[in-house]
Amino acid sequence: MRIDELGEFALIARLTAGLPSRADVALGVGDDAALLNLSGFAADSLLVATCDAQVERQHFTLDVATPEEIGHKALAVNLSDLAAMGAAPLWALVSLLLPRALDVATLDGVYAGLRSLAARYSVALVGGNVAATDGPLAIDVTALGRVPRDRALTRAGGSPGDLVLVTGTLGAAAAGVLLQGGDARLDAVAGEAKTHARAAQVSPQPRVAEGQALAGSGVVTAMLDVSDGLAADLGHLCAASNAGAELDADVIPVDPAASEVAAALGRDALQLALEGGEDYELLFTVPPARLEQALAVVAEAVGIARVIGRLTEPGSGLRIRFADGRIEHLAARGWDHLRPQ
Amino acid sequence: MRIDELGEFALIARLTAGLPSRADVALGVGDDAALLNLSGFAADSLLVATCDAQVERQHFTLDVATPEEIGHKALAVNLSDLAAMGAAPLWALVSLLLPRALDVATLDGVYAGLRSLAARYSVALVGGNVAATDGPLAIDVTALGRVPRDRALTRAGGSPGDLVLVTGTLGAAAAGVLLQGGDARLDAVAGEAKTHARAAQVSPQPRVAEGQALAGSGVVTAMLDVSDGLAADLGHLCAASNAGAELDADVIPVDPAASEVAAALGRDALQLALEGGEDYELLFTVPPARLEQALAVVAEAVGIARVIGRLTEPGSGLRIRFADGRIEHLAARGWDHLRPQ
Repeated sequence: MRIDELGEFALIARLTAGLPSRADVALGVGDDAALLNLSGFAADSLLVATCDAQVERQHFTLDVATPEEIGHKALAVNLSDLAAMGAAPLWALVSLLLPRALDVATLDGVYAGLRSLAARYSVALVGGNVAATDGPLAIDVTALGRVPRDRALTRAGGSPGDLVLVTGTLGAAAAGVLLQGGDARLDAVAGEAKTHARAAQVSPQPRVAEGQALAGSGVVTAMLDVSDGLAADLGHLCAASNAGAELDADVIPVDPAASEVAAALGRDALQLALEGGEDYELLFTVPPARLEQALAVVAEAVGIARVIGRLTEPGSGLRIRFADGRIEHLAARGWDHLRPQ
Repeated sequence: MRIDELGEFALIARLTAGLPSRADVALGVGDDAALLNLSGFAADSLLVATCDAQVERQHFTLDVATPEEIGHKALAVNLSDLAAMGAAPLWALVSLLLPRALDVATLDGVYAGLRSLAARYSVALVGGNVAATDGPLAIDVTALGRVPRDRALTRAGGSPGDLVLVTGTLGAAAAGVLLQGGDARLDAVAGEAKTHARAAQVSPQPRVAEGQALAGSGVVTAMLDVSDGLAADLGHLCAASNAGAELDADVIPVDPAASEVAAALGRDALQLALEGGEDYELLFTVPPARLEQALAVVAEAVGIARVIGRLTEPGSGLRIRFADGRIEHLAARGWDHLRPQ
């Protein structure tokens, strides 16, 4: 059935029936606005707010990602932004732009993906909007969270000498995009690597617990999530912190699946890790004297994070140092959402 | 210049330069998320959150509305939703879906309209997102506000016997839509009426102060804003309040411009007021014993509101009573965003 056969109000009822709530939701979907109880906020807490949209043919296509994965990612990228501030996610609003011919089952799937990720982190979907469009399907999510004022982390706050760390691995999502090209040389890539790269791209896992643990440790000076690409996002952090940075090429955690895909296509895996984007890992800085403490926090909550470089004096730009001692300028290239594709 | 020539980061810098802030914005645009200070919230305050999108060719066209009007309306419809809960608006996030060929000047205008309305109500634009689309321009706004817990108004809370009131006049926005049809008979409509109807449609004025005053009075039992149309929105209120309703046709405040446009086209002006939608007036209920008090609040803050009917027993449905004593069933027809156009 097409959504315009169902109609707006029946569709909203269908999407929002039995949405998991939270004790702090005084009024959820169904009125002009949601009413949210702040009694869980300590006196020194800040409200954290962010929004990000997933747009068909720009961020996803229905022939590559399942509806569930599309819904998952629409919320995941927002939870990643909250995590980058060190915030606990609480509530989300979902604004949908819907082609009238869209199948109801597709939208059911998108909402199943949203609900599933929301439930995992006890996020309540408290509001939303449905609008028709003669263009692509779009899912625009606003996420709200909470962070203790003295623990909130921003892109600013890093100082020359601070070590640069990143969680997890980089480049797998970019490899997932390359897989979609269907190049015959990709037949050589192991199925496991393909599965991993595909999942990294269509179903990223936000570092929700890790962001809060790192912020709570008190040893992190600046943090953001890697969405535009390591080099571009490091550039953002350096601009906000008024510092340069130098990365060590040989310790950048290139995802093994990215290495496999890059090798099959004769591409540079390191470049995928530096410029690919959509990794949704956390990039953060720590004073050298606090490294041990940071790694202990990391070991407990994050699983893994690695030192990949250090901040340098303002004006020194972004550089990358190779194992042979060669140092090159690192272009802060990355994803520009408006760049012609 | 096209926005894709400017690029994402230069565009964001251009749109967000010198945005008016508020003392309670700890961190506004430019990081992964906004940080908002809740120190202005009394212990019994609720956070109020809503989102609504304006989509090209569904809600506006660039040949009818100016960019400034489009930006204004994108925020206005959200402030209207906050007003309907009795909330004071505080912060907004703006998510843009942008065709790559869009002219930068158009977007400058949209943002000028957003900024101007935000400044009028001391709303800080604290966050946002830019995404490209191969479809229509869309402006999706999330608005956040505050309301004392014991003053928050919802659609529920009305009881049989409560009087039904509405602020301002109805039907002008629907008349504005009819004007766009360009029917030659519209030449007979006075220029003033045309100007008023057009403004009502492209540049609605949210009842921000009125909503807070009505909620603060403590005499209102239920409230919502008239966005889908009087009959449809009364239906929503009745469904939530578990009541029927009866309107008095001869006291429904049909906007004079709606009457003029309807007369020129041989249409029923009352139908425009009942089903037209997009009036963004406040529809609310008051126990008869509190009417005098409500009207005093109204006279002070709202300017004008009128009794247009009363809530009736559950199961009695929606009815309309005409001056000649005739009573008809009132279909809760109104705007369905997914209805084929």
